Amino acid sequence: MQRFLVILVVALSLQASVAEWSYQTSWYEKAREDKVARGTVWPQPRSVGTTSARFSFDPTKFKLVADSGSAAVTNKECKEIVDHALSRYADLLFWIPEDESVSVSGDETVHQLVVTVTSPCSRYPSLHSDESYRLEVPASGDATLRAQTAWGALRGLETFSQLVYEDNGKHVINRTTISDSPRFAHRGIMVDTARHFIPLPYILQNLDAMAYNKMNVFHWHMVDDQSFPFQSTTFPDLSGKGAYTKKHVYTPDDVSKVIEFARLRGIRVIPEFDSPGHMMSWGQGHPDLLTRCSPTDFQPDIYSLGPANPAREETYTFMQRLFQEIRQVFADEYFHLGGDEVNFQCWMSNEEVQQFMRQRGFPNTTVGFADLQGYHMKRILDIIYHHFPQRTRGIVWQDVFDTAIVGNDLADVSMNTIVHVWEWNHTRELARVTQAGYKALLSSCWYLNHISYGQDWPQYYGCDPQDFQGTQQQKDLVLGGEACLWGEWVDSTNFVPRMWPRASAVAERLWSPQSVTDSVAASPRMEEHRCRMVRRGIPAQPQGPSYCKYEWNIQSDLPNYRPVITSSGPRVAAAGLVHSVFLGVLVLVAVRCLP
Amino acid sequence: MQRFLVILVVALSLQASVAEWSYQTSWYEKAREDKVARGTVWPQPRSVGTTSARFSFDPTKFKLVADSGSAAVTNKECKEIVDHALSRYADLLFWIPEDESVSVSGDETVHQLVVTVTSPCSRYPSLHSDESYRLEVPASGDATLRAQTAWGALRGLETFSQLVYEDNGKHVINRTTISDSPRFAHRGIMVDTARHFIPLPYILQNLDAMAYNKMNVFHWHMVDDQSFPFQSTTFPDLSGKGAYTKKHVYTPDDVSKVIEFARLRGIRVIPEFDSPGHMMSWGQGHPDLLTRCSPTDFQPDIYSLGPANPAREETYTFMQRLFQEIRQVFADEYFHLGGDEVNFQCWMSNEEVQQFMRQRGFPNTTVGFADLQGYHMKRILDIIYHHFPQRTRGIVWQDVFDTAIVGNDLADVSMNTIVHVWEWNHTRELARVTQAGYKALLSSCWYLNHISYGQDWPQYYGCDPQDFQGTQQQKDLVLGGEACLWGEWVDSTNFVPRMWPRASAVAERLWSPQSVTDSVAASPRMEEHRCRMVRRGIPAQPQGPSYCKYEWNIQSDLPNYRPVITSSGPRVAAAGLVHSVFLGVLVLVAVRCLP
Repeated sequence: MQRFLVILVVALSLQASVAEWSYQTSWYEKAREDKVARGTVWPQPRSVGTTSARFSFDPTKFKLVADSGSAAVTNKECKEIVDHALSRYADLLFWIPEDESVSVSGDETVHQLVVTVTSPCSRYPSLHSDESYRLEVPASGDATLRAQTAWGALRGLETFSQLVYEDNGKHVINRTTISDSPRFAHRGIMVDTARHFIPLPYILQNLDAMAYNKMNVFHWHMVDDQSFPFQSTTFPDLSGKGAYTKKHVYTPDDVSKVIEFARLRGIRVIPEFDSPGHMMSWGQGHPDLLTRCSPTDFQPDIYSLGPANPAREETYTFMQRLFQEIRQVFADEYFHLGGDEVNFQCWMSNEEVQQFMRQRGFPNTTVGFADLQGYHMKRILDIIYHHFPQRTRGIVWQDVFDTAIVGNDLADVSMNTIVHVWEWNHTRELARVTQAGYKALLSSCWYLNHISYGQDWPQYYGCDPQDFQGTQQQKDLVLGGEACLWGEWVDSTNFVPRMWPRASAVAERLWSPQSVTDSVAASPRMEEHRCRMVRRGIPAQPQGPSYCKYEWNIQSDLPNYRPVITSSGPRVAAAGLVHSVFLGVLVLVAVRCLP
Repeated sequence: MQRFLVILVVALSLQASVAEWSYQTSWYEKAREDKVARGTVWPQPRSVGTTSARFSFDPTKFKLVADSGSAAVTNKECKEIVDHALSRYADLLFWIPEDESVSVSGDETVHQLVVTVTSPCSRYPSLHSDESYRLEVPASGDATLRAQTAWGALRGLETFSQLVYEDNGKHVINRTTISDSPRFAHRGIMVDTARHFIPLPYILQNLDAMAYNKMNVFHWHMVDDQSFPFQSTTFPDLSGKGAYTKKHVYTPDDVSKVIEFARLRGIRVIPEFDSPGHMMSWGQGHPDLLTRCSPTDFQPDIYSLGPANPAREETYTFMQRLFQEIRQVFADEYFHLGGDEVNFQCWMSNEEVQQFMRQRGFPNTTVGFADLQGYHMKRILDIIYHHFPQRTRGIVWQDVFDTAIVGNDLADVSMNTIVHVWEWNHTRELARVTQAGYKALLSSCWYLNHISYGQDWPQYYGCDPQDFQGTQQQKDLVLGGEACLWGEWVDSTNFVPRMWPRASAVAERLWSPQSVTDSVAASPRMEEHRCRMVRRGIPAQPQGPSYCKYEWNIQSDLPNYRPVITSSGPRVAAAGLVHSVFLGVLVLVAVRCLP
C-alpha cells in the first residue's frame, strides 16, 4: 500500500469491475463479454485494493523468484515447496500463443514477482497452518508476495496468477494490493473411490483444481461396501479380494504420490476407513471381521455380511494393525473413522452379537444397539488416541455423536474428535454438536452428487456453516466443511466436470469473508474462473450458454480416443505424469529462477 | 439357421443369459458380475437364436472379409462403405492385451466372417434405406453376414462385434443366429452447437457412439440465438460476426468431414436452420434480417433484435440464397427448418411489421400473429419445395403445426413435411398431428439435457412413440424420434458422458421390437454396453456402482492435461484424426482384407 500513489482500497466484491477497464470489443462481442470479469480472483480475497493503472508482461523476460534473504530460500522445507510452486506457476502465468500475441514494447511492464516467506516451514500442511499472504503490484519496482509460511506463499501465487488477464494479445495486470487469509481452516473435497475407482491421474488433476480454488483438504473416502482399492501391505487380501480387480487399486506407491502431490500444493490428505458399517468389501478377504446376518447360507455370500462384528476381540486387533499401517502411510494428524449408517437389523439377527449384548447389559432395543455402536466407536477411537497419541485425531460422521447421545455415552467420544455433519437439518445438528463442545465440519448442503437441471452452484454458495443458533464460541468450533462427491454415478468419465466449478462455490464460501454472499455479483468472476480452469486443462463444466476463448481441446485431437489397453503398450503410465512434473520443475527452476 | 444342429430360437430378451454360461469367477466377483451380461447386443435384435456352444478367436488369424461375388465387392458404392467398416471393426473386435491373453490352441475357432451385400448401394443413407441383416455363427464353417444394403451390413458388423466377449483371457463367441431390422427408420440424436460450441473431434466421437448404438440420424442444431458457428461462403458475416470467436466455427471442410464420417457409418446428417425465432446471432452480421423490437436504441443492440422480419421481401431472398448453399453442402433429403418459440411481443412492437399485418389483413391478435408465423413458414417451405423440389423435404418443430391450426393455415404446410413433437403432452400432439395426416418424430420424453439424480435411462426407455390414441395408419406415420441434448449446460467438457449411455435407452426403444420394454431385464445388457463403449474410447458415464474391466484411462496419462494452445504448437489437429482413420483404413484393408 505504502508504495502506491493513487489507490482505491476496495474491500471485496468490486473486483468484478476490473474487466470493464480493459476489455474492448465490438458491440455484439461486448454483450457476451459482460458475463466475464477478467483478471478477477476466485475465491474472493479478504481485502482487495486495485486501480485502473495497468502493466504488461513480457513473458520471455518475466521472472518468479524467491527472496534469497528469506526462509523461502534459506529454510529447506520452505524452499522445496516454493521452488516447486514457482515452476508450476511459471507454466500457468501466460497462455497467449505466440502467433496471437502482441509485442509489449513501449508499455510499462512488470519484471518480476519476489516471494518472501518470513518463518521456517513445516513439511506438511496442517489444520493450524497459517495461509495468509500479502500481495502488491506497485506503481513501480517489483511485485511482491509476502507470507509467513510456504502455504501462504502458495495461496498468494495462485492469486497473482489469477490477476493476470488478456487484453488484445497482451498479458496484463492491474496495480493491486491484496491482503488475504481464509475464513475457515478446513476447506475440503471428499472423493469416493469405492463406488467407482478413480484412476490416479484424475485424483492428481483434482488436486490441481483444488489448489486453483485454495482448497486444502483432500478427504479420501477410499473404501466402502462396493470395493477396497487400498493396497494394504499388512493385509494384502483386503484389496486382493476386495478391490474390483487387481488393476482397480491404489498401491503404496500411488498413495505416496498423491500425498506428495498434495503436500506441494498445501493440501492435506485425510483418509477415511469407515466402520462398523459400509465394510462389505473388507469381508471378501476377511469375512470373520463382519457380522454374519441370518438367515445364513452354507456358502459364504457377500449379501449375508453386515457391519463389523463387535463381539470378537479379533476385530479390534485387526483394526489396530491396519490403523498402524495407515498411520505410517498418511502424514496428516487427522484420520476419518466414518461411523455412519449402521445396519442394526443384521446385528439383531446374529446370535454371537446378541450374546455379547446380553453380557454387556445392552438391552435389545434401539438404545441397546446405539450402545453397541458406541462401544465399537469407543474401541476404534481408543486405538487412535491410545496407540498413536502423539499425532492422531479422529473425524467421525455425525451418527457417532447422535448414537452416543441416544446411548448416553458421549463421554466415550473424545473432545479431540471432530464431528462431520452430513444429514438434513444441519443447522440444528451444528447447534447440538457445538453446544456439546465438539469441533464440527459441514457437508450436508454440499453433496455435489445430487445433480439437478440448470445452475446449482448458487445454492451451494448460499449455505453458511456458521448460520445456526448458537454463541460465538459455538460458531468458532466450526472448522469449515467439505464438498462431497459420492461415487455412485461418477467415475473417471465424468468425475472432474461434475466436481468443477460446482465445488468452487464451496471453496469461496469457506475462504472468503462471511459478507461475500451475492451469487449474482459473483457470477462474472465464476465465469472467468471456470474458463481459467478450462485453459489450465481442468474440464470444468459450463454454467449456462457461453464460451471460453481457450476452449477445452477445441482444435486438438481427442484425448486418448482409442481403445485403452491398460497393462501394456506405449502409453505413458500415471507415474510418468508425476515424473514429468518433477522433471519439469527441475528444468524450469534452472532456467527461470536461478540467478 | 439351416446350418445349425442344435439351436434355441429365442425371440428377444433371453440374450442376457448368455453370460451365465461363460463367466466363471470367485464367489465375490460373481456377485458383481451378475450385473453384466457379457456378449449381449444393444439395441436388442429382432430375433436371436443362440446356444451354449462356443468358439474362440485367434486374433492374429481371424479375418473380416467381403464376399467377392456380391455387391460388397462388385458395386463401387457398397465396396467403399463395407471396406471402411471392415477395417474399423477389425480394430474393435479384439481388445485383450497380449500379456493377459491365453492361447486358443485346442479350441474350436471361428476363422472369418464373410459379409455379403445383395443389392447395389446408394452413396448416402436415407429415410428409406433398408438396414436389415442376417447373421450366423454356425457350428462349423465361416460366420456369415448377409444384408441387402451396405447399411444393413454396417448394422450386422456392429452386432457381430458385440457378440464377442472375454472369457478368462480369450475372445469367444456363442453359436448364434440373428435376424434383425429396425422398428423405426428415423433414430436420431440432436446436438446443439450454438449454446456452446462442440469441437469437431467430439462431434466425430459422438457419431462413432451413434454407430455403436445403431442410430442413424445426426440432427445438427447448428445455430441459435447465442451463436452462428456455420461458416457460410455465401454470407461470411453470419459466422464472421455471429460465431463466438473466429475459432468457434465449422468450416466447409469441417462440415464435409462430418458428413463423410457419418455416411461411412450409415448416419444421415440433417442440419437445422431455425427461423423465424432463435435468430439473434444471425442479426449480428445481418441486423436487417430481424425485427427491431421497440423501444429501439440509436445504437444497434443485440438485445433489441427479435424474430426474422417477415415484412421485408429481402428476408426471403436472403434465406433462399442461404438455403441454396446449405442444399449444396448437405447431402440428406431432409432439412430441419425449426419454427419454434416465436416472440410475438417483438413483432407487435414493430411498426413495419404491424403495417405489413394490416396490409395482409392479419388481425392484431394471437390468431393474427399465428397467421404471420404461418406466412413466414409458408415462405420458407416454399423455398425448399419450389426451388429444390427434386430432393428437399422439411422437418419442422410442432409449433408450425400448432400455429397453422390456430391460424387455420394448415393447407400451407406441405404434407411432405415432418412434424417434430417436442412439448409436453406429446401423446395428444402425436394423435393430432398424425390425424391430420402428417408424418411425425418424437423428442418430448427424450430431452437428455434434463438431468436428475440417479438412474434416469429407464424413464427414456419407457417412452414409446406409438403409445397414443389413434389408428394403425396414424401410428405408421410416426417415423421415429430423436434424443435431444440441448447445449445450455453442455460443452466439450461433459458432452459425451452426458449423452451416453442415456441415449442408448432411446436407441433401443427406436430399434428393438415394441415388446422389448423391461428396463430391469435390460440392465445387465446396458451395463455390458456401457463398458463396451468405454473400452472403445467413448467416455459413457456409469449407471450405479460398478466398474469396467477396461476402465476409462485407468492407467494412462491424462487426456491432454496441459493448457491447450489452440492455434499453434505440436498438437495434432482434428483433421489429423480423420486423416489417421482414413490412413488406418487403407493399411488395415491392405493387411487384412485383400486376398
